[in-house]
Amino acid sequence: MNMIDIINKTKRAIPLEDEEIVFLVNGYTKGEIPDYQMSAWLMAVCLNGLNDRETFSLTRAMRDSGDVLDLSCINGVTADKHSSGGVGDKTSLIVGPIAASCGVYVPKMSGRGLGHTGGTIDKLESISGYRTDLPFEDFAGIVNKTGFSIISQSGELCPADKKIYALRNASGTVDSIPLICASIMSKKLALNADIILLDVKCGSGAFMKTNLEARKLADLMERVGDAAGKKCRAVVTDMDSPLGFCIGNALEVKEAIEVLQGKVKGRLYDICIELAANLLELSGKGTYGKCTAMAEEAVKSGRALAVLKETIELQGGDGRICDDVSLLPQARFKHEIRASRDVEILSVNAEELGMASLLLGAGRLEKGDEIDPTAGIVLEFEAGDKISMDAPLMTLYSTYCSDFSEAAIRAYNAITFRDLTSSALT
Amino acid sequence: MNMIDIINKTKRAIPLEDEEIVFLVNGYTKGEIPDYQMSAWLMAVCLNGLNDRETFSLTRAMRDSGDVLDLSCINGVTADKHSSGGVGDKTSLIVGPIAASCGVYVPKMSGRGLGHTGGTIDKLESISGYRTDLPFEDFAGIVNKTGFSIISQSGELCPADKKIYALRNASGTVDSIPLICASIMSKKLALNADIILLDVKCGSGAFMKTNLEARKLADLMERVGDAAGKKCRAVVTDMDSPLGFCIGNALEVKEAIEVLQGKVKGRLYDICIELAANLLELSGKGTYGKCTAMAEEAVKSGRALAVLKETIELQGGDGRICDDVSLLPQARFKHEIRASRDVEILSVNAEELGMASLLLGAGRLEKGDEIDPTAGIVLEFEAGDKISMDAPLMTLYSTYCSDFSEAAIRAYNAITFRDLTSSALT
Repeated sequence: MNMIDIINKTKRAIPLEDEEIVFLVNGYTKGEIPDYQMSAWLMAVCLNGLNDRETFSLTRAMRDSGDVLDLSCINGVTADKHSSGGVGDKTSLIVGPIAASCGVYVPKMSGRGLGHTGGTIDKLESISGYRTDLPFEDFAGIVNKTGFSIISQSGELCPADKKIYALRNASGTVDSIPLICASIMSKKLALNADIILLDVKCGSGAFMKTNLEARKLADLMERVGDAAGKKCRAVVTDMDSPLGFCIGNALEVKEAIEVLQGKVKGRLYDICIELAANLLELSGKGTYGKCTAMAEEAVKSGRALAVLKETIELQGGDGRICDDVSLLPQARFKHEIRASRDVEILSVNAEELGMASLLLGAGRLEKGDEIDPTAGIVLEFEAGDKISMDAPLMTLYSTYCSDFSEAAIRAYNAITFRDLTSSALT
Repeated sequence: MNMIDIINKTKRAIPLEDEEIVFLVNGYTKGEIPDYQMSAWLMAVCLNGLNDRETFSLTRAMRDSGDVLDLSCINGVTADKHSSGGVGDKTSLIVGPIAASCGVYVPKMSGRGLGHTGGTIDKLESISGYRTDLPFEDFAGIVNKTGFSIISQSGELCPADKKIYALRNASGTVDSIPLICASIMSKKLALNADIILLDVKCGSGAFMKTNLEARKLADLMERVGDAAGKKCRAVVTDMDSPLGFCIGNALEVKEAIEVLQGKVKGRLYDICIELAANLLELSGKGTYGKCTAMAEEAVKSGRALAVLKETIELQGGDGRICDDVSLLPQARFKHEIRASRDVEILSVNAEELGMASLLLGAGRLEKGDEIDPTAGIVLEFEAGDKISMDAPLMTLYSTYCSDFSEAAIRAYNAITFRDLTSSALT
């Protein structure tokens, strides 16, 4: 078996044998197959695809490149909720506590953000004292106690994915549905929860730009999950505009708490209830309708918020933020943008807002960049709203960056307006 | 401009701008673009192709990565004949002297062989004393005197091609018509003769396996040559079975001399006359019919052989081999293979015979391997011949290798027989 033959097969759209896929994943992970051969193969996959069996094999081989967790120490059905990532996506911080408060165990490992999308771990680290690097035993202990915990991804899970993902980023081979599927599902299968709920984001702020593509990825991930013996469901949710009104780490924690406090409704709340209801239904808690009611009740009663508070405290964080969000770190500088005339908001480019937020310090352009937990953007509108002249559009926050000009221009240009004044056409 | 955007464009089959192609060729040649990005791009080209304009641009950028020769010091029309390479292909040694003896100047730079195809330079170096590393001035002087010279490729021609070719070999991205075209034509345009005749080999012993593919490559190379202001013609010739009866370096020089002595006719002679007539016609020497007669006369009169002899002597070689081929180096060992029963030869796999010859020492598996000039194979048949039991099929020669078993098995298996004995079906 040699890599040139494998590359040539995929180039000619001849399906690979399972052993060939294992050979290439292991060889690349060990450094025996050079980057330039792997990137040529990845490009062949981008253009010719892989069939289902090859995708299953690739996912399995990537999962088996590292540890597969044993969650048998957890006292009930375990569920993992994963989002393919998007601007302002703080659903994990809301859905996990809701499901946990309804009797499902949600052990979650999450990553840091890169580029315009934030990482859940970065968000949690804006909570003073919160530890994301707990050993597995402590993590499992917290899940058994509160039903919910999030820690950062262990170094031993899916080293193959880590290496392949970095190469895809650097070689223009990111946008392939089988490769995205294998990257996500290998990590899900290594975490090894009984139930996997996948939230595939679709739109300008997400990897999948069209509904058709998002549904393809969702269906493929469901088939891979089923083939691995998991209860797996993938829903497609909109990410054309950002989820909620807040973008940025501490700002998103604040908004998540406000949702669990019952203070924030709208699209973010609705999606969280939908995701939680799916998790509960998959866990055998009843019909979808009954599960929706349970999820809503978990928020209304404050039980979900209590789970979040207890989890934060068990992980060393300041749980009082759940009662008083002003205890979260606050930005030193702020910059308000107001409407220069009467306008209607036609659309919001989530990716561009994410980039503006990154410029303020909320994200990373390169791995290892430091993050400003206070930085970000708070929107005062949703698409479709009408804004009067001089009314606030959004506020930009930062502690590290005092010159807001570049971020402000980028954030402003992310919005498409319709002028409502009579002279609009001149 | 950055390489990821360029890779993504080709991946999406969006044509590149000329400046983008220059950027990638120069960046890769200088080492600023890493191998893993270049191989991803090359794979995208293998699968999505390049349009004509992109192929012209790529060829030009590769040509301009090094020196472009100035042949104005040569006293007339210059012509370059190139073969895409094949087993037993010694046509350059025959066609060049024929054309030169008819008044065309043939300055030729050639390469060494790799894998199953031999290199013209390796063949010439089997002539005692022959120097292939002459400086350009001496080379031009010989061309002006005899009309013909072959030296090895200068290190300054097309460094981009050298680097890209090595990467293609190592990344499974060899078989792309635009990439093959750019590789061949960048070198031809850097040599810069007025007339370019391309001999595209087609069949089991060549890169192009089908006539359709070979014709596609031929047409594309003609368009690239025309676009660069050259008189360019590409003919497709058969390489299903080896060209002539001899494979191996000194053995092929011997056969070339025997063709020029008028002693060997058949397919090899016919193809050489066809190629020479094409060169003469492109050089304005008359109709194709008239040029064919001129080429035949150049052999019959001994004028072409005289050109070869004078050229060999001017390059420091022993010209007496043109009168007495037994002065060429002789193998120490030989091994004869005879027919084990009455058979008809149905076909000969040229590539497999090339590999058998390589095992005897006539070729290189890896760059830098040393070559045995005496090694090779002499066939006693052509496809279609009937051979009686115990009559000789072929003889294997080698000086370095005394155990012929592996090469003999491979050479024997390269032949497809039909058994002519009555018990053939049992």
